[in-house]
Amino acid sequence: MNDHKRPKVSIFDSTLRDGAQGEGISFSVLDKLKIVQLLDDLGIEYVEAGNPGSNPKDLEFFREVSSLDLKSVKLVAFGSTRRRNTKASDDANLASLLTADTPYVSIFGKSWDFQVTDIIRTTLKENLAMISDTVAYMTSCNKKVIFDAEHFYDGYIENEKYAIETIRAAVDAGAVSIALCDTRGGTVPSLIGSITRRIVDMFEGVEIGIHAHNDISCADASSLIAVENGARSVQGTLVGFGERCGNANLSTIIPSLQLKMGYDVISPEALSHLTLTAHSLSEIANVSIPHGTAYVGRSAFTHKGGMHIDGIGKNPRSFEHIQPELVGNERRVLMSEVSGRATILKQIKKYAPHLEKDAPETKRIIDSLKRLEMSGYQFEGAESSFELIIAKHLGKYTPFFTLDHYKTFGEMPNNGQTETSHTAVVKVFVNKESAIEVAQGDGPVHALDKALRKVLNNFYPQLSQIHLSDYKVRVLDSLNASAATVRVLIETTDGECSWSTVGVSTDLIEASWMALVDSIEYRLMKEGVIPSSTHTKGEHV
Amino acid sequence: MNDHKRPKVSIFDSTLRDGAQGEGISFSVLDKLKIVQLLDDLGIEYVEAGNPGSNPKDLEFFREVSSLDLKSVKLVAFGSTRRRNTKASDDANLASLLTADTPYVSIFGKSWDFQVTDIIRTTLKENLAMISDTVAYMTSCNKKVIFDAEHFYDGYIENEKYAIETIRAAVDAGAVSIALCDTRGGTVPSLIGSITRRIVDMFEGVEIGIHAHNDISCADASSLIAVENGARSVQGTLVGFGERCGNANLSTIIPSLQLKMGYDVISPEALSHLTLTAHSLSEIANVSIPHGTAYVGRSAFTHKGGMHIDGIGKNPRSFEHIQPELVGNERRVLMSEVSGRATILKQIKKYAPHLEKDAPETKRIIDSLKRLEMSGYQFEGAESSFELIIAKHLGKYTPFFTLDHYKTFGEMPNNGQTETSHTAVVKVFVNKESAIEVAQGDGPVHALDKALRKVLNNFYPQLSQIHLSDYKVRVLDSLNASAATVRVLIETTDGECSWSTVGVSTDLIEASWMALVDSIEYRLMKEGVIPSSTHTKGEHV
Repeated sequence: MNDHKRPKVSIFDSTLRDGAQGEGISFSVLDKLKIVQLLDDLGIEYVEAGNPGSNPKDLEFFREVSSLDLKSVKLVAFGSTRRRNTKASDDANLASLLTADTPYVSIFGKSWDFQVTDIIRTTLKENLAMISDTVAYMTSCNKKVIFDAEHFYDGYIENEKYAIETIRAAVDAGAVSIALCDTRGGTVPSLIGSITRRIVDMFEGVEIGIHAHNDISCADASSLIAVENGARSVQGTLVGFGERCGNANLSTIIPSLQLKMGYDVISPEALSHLTLTAHSLSEIANVSIPHGTAYVGRSAFTHKGGMHIDGIGKNPRSFEHIQPELVGNERRVLMSEVSGRATILKQIKKYAPHLEKDAPETKRIIDSLKRLEMSGYQFEGAESSFELIIAKHLGKYTPFFTLDHYKTFGEMPNNGQTETSHTAVVKVFVNKESAIEVAQGDGPVHALDKALRKVLNNFYPQLSQIHLSDYKVRVLDSLNASAATVRVLIETTDGECSWSTVGVSTDLIEASWMALVDSIEYRLMKEGVIPSSTHTKGEHV
Repeated sequence: MNDHKRPKVSIFDSTLRDGAQGEGISFSVLDKLKIVQLLDDLGIEYVEAGNPGSNPKDLEFFREVSSLDLKSVKLVAFGSTRRRNTKASDDANLASLLTADTPYVSIFGKSWDFQVTDIIRTTLKENLAMISDTVAYMTSCNKKVIFDAEHFYDGYIENEKYAIETIRAAVDAGAVSIALCDTRGGTVPSLIGSITRRIVDMFEGVEIGIHAHNDISCADASSLIAVENGARSVQGTLVGFGERCGNANLSTIIPSLQLKMGYDVISPEALSHLTLTAHSLSEIANVSIPHGTAYVGRSAFTHKGGMHIDGIGKNPRSFEHIQPELVGNERRVLMSEVSGRATILKQIKKYAPHLEKDAPETKRIIDSLKRLEMSGYQFEGAESSFELIIAKHLGKYTPFFTLDHYKTFGEMPNNGQTETSHTAVVKVFVNKESAIEVAQGDGPVHALDKALRKVLNNFYPQLSQIHLSDYKVRVLDSLNASAATVRVLIETTDGECSWSTVGVSTDLIEASWMALVDSIEYRLMKEGVIPSSTHTKGEHV
């Protein structure tokens, strides 16, 4: 298909606003900044965040985000229509919305008469004025206004005339785009389609968008159907986070629009990073994408049935609706050795571009990675551990130290009356010299981290510049409860760069140890340090 | 709506056949029998299992299932069309299918020319004969035949004429129902609708069904749209299990058909048990239903945003598309950073209905909850800890034991050569008696969990019935890395009920300890156990 002829659909991500309303979702300011960057790399056009006036976290976010160099993303601040019976220019919420300093603002207002009379408790007429005044005021402040017609479909079904009047009020006051919201998520797709078509026809020349929720499991389908009926903007959240059953899931809508329906959404190159981006975003939220998620789930191209595996062997087209690589996912065949080889190879080439596909090292690396993945490793958020494994296989790595042993002790109540309750002892050898150190911390991992740095500092003083910047624990197999396998991901920084490593074990302390060791060795390796025993200052045993 | 006028849609569940192709799904014979009973209680009409010839488990299943007294379920055995170039009456697979002794059989055959030529590698003509012969033979053996037109939609799109011929062959040979399959799951819903309509019109008088897969996240919507276009049978699996992204999810399709679209599917009474049935089936498969699942998920009627909670307080209709009780689910209101005093009060009232809004206890409870939330607690997934806090404030709680101390030790390498690397010692007092026990585990938390249960078992032997079923760690403030505050959520079960508790600390071990203690005390409190020192059997110090 010729891309120049593809109609454009723009994508509006609300992970930071509607997504944060999902149960169990909570973002720090740093999380939010990372998410904006991920969405920008993916080529998303609009990213909605909150209102700087609503809480200090949002205030800090809008201050910090201006320092990012965004290529595609236009930031959108989000707020309500003015309060009833006030002037828009006197409304404190609108004033704080302006301080976000974004080119776009989303203003939501009520399109369902029942919501006006029974929930915000004002007159239908005043509600129209609230919409009109707010959109006009924001427009006069040089904001491009997207009007979120809340409960639009429910409103249309119960009082079509009034629902349309609310859209008219926003359009006449200067809104550049109208998002028709199925706020309760309960409207069947065919009705979403026919109602959207009416509005598109009625407001020719105005961009109409769809904002769907998944309460009847149709948000993604309804979004596609709205586009077939003339909507040209789709609101959702990248992995479907949101209130109750979540918002429309952009990671499944984007490829359907682009690969199935011939729309121009993001570049094919960006699309090929979709799976990685979706999982990275999920990692930030500390939530797993369900394996069965369309396009980006781990099982999306996984074959188990005998006849399916046979068919795939003859021609993947037989049981795969698209090539998994188009969205950066990969084929897996359960109980077989052939899965993912090409994918892993692609990753290896990133670090060792000279390596041939058929080289024996390649095979060994792939085998060992596959073994590690089977046991719960994941290298998506731990590129440095991945690089270390490749270095080890290519003979480019010499250990910087050998562990003699570590011990951890914890005690409650804390009889020693110290502030910290845990103690760790670490003894290492570097060449033939040994050193042992002890440190205390708030938990066993904290104590171990401090003791390891302390003992290695005797040999590698440059380690004093680095410290952990993130520490994440994921329980992999929760059915075994406290004896489950855990994966620890850590991020380390020297103030300029940061790098991430991983460890997996049924023992949280051991998993943390593995990730800590990788983080230190990676740094020393990158610096070109030669494993040595000079500069020793510690207590030698 | 008058139920006598509602058009009927019949439901066909394939959890035992297509569902078993899902990654991680494996059913024992006993599991399968339990599932058939659950589906029968729900009023499902058709339940598809495998072929007794395909493996001994299926053989045993069909033998055992005949002893169940099923009210609504008709069993369906599943098999392929005859092999190419054989006689149907000589085909071993068809012979074994007959031994299942079911009133119905599902016969799948190819409707996509590409599959015929490239995958099963025969002629288009022979494939038609395979369909026709097989359906005719099974019909002559007194079976009612449902023909599964595999890859029908893909086939129709690429070779409409041939796809229709395959349906014609099955209908002419006596098939009582035709299931149009979107086997790869990649067809957009609007196409599913228009193609289904064509087939329904073309084969008037024959029941047409839809069998959708979720590879573009549209299986549920496509099933609804097929029904709007004349399909009168919906195939799926009760909680969406299936190959790759799963099959159409009957637990979301049934309520949509019945509550939104006016079809007669199952009785309102049965519908009100849908949530419980879906979770029971998932339990059998040892898989959790994702919280955000439409209708039956734990978050499906859960409100977090301040304005949503306010709206729900005024009228639940404002943000709920149906009454949760209709499907046996319930409303939950989360207490997050965004929720206010009114929400917390409503939660308190659930446990202490007599408590007045302005009572001093109420104020104390709210103050202490808000303090806990500020320090990182979250009661969304920890209702039992919440209830304990209320009980403590209302003087309804007496501690069941006092901690004297616990100690944990870890060591690597493991000099003692034991399999577990961590040891915990716990000493407690119950009244004036003390007990001390030691246990080992895979990590400090695992060891502590075992030691705590062991020592309390001396006083409360009923605790031997309970065990952890889930353990989750969330790092709250990841900027402090390994010294960050962590929140531990655990779920405990006695095999019948489960309950969840929370602990927060900068020390992971202490946070886990708090959640473990809550889980035990909650259980003892609910059971009405009076803190005692009888039944002591342990080593007393």
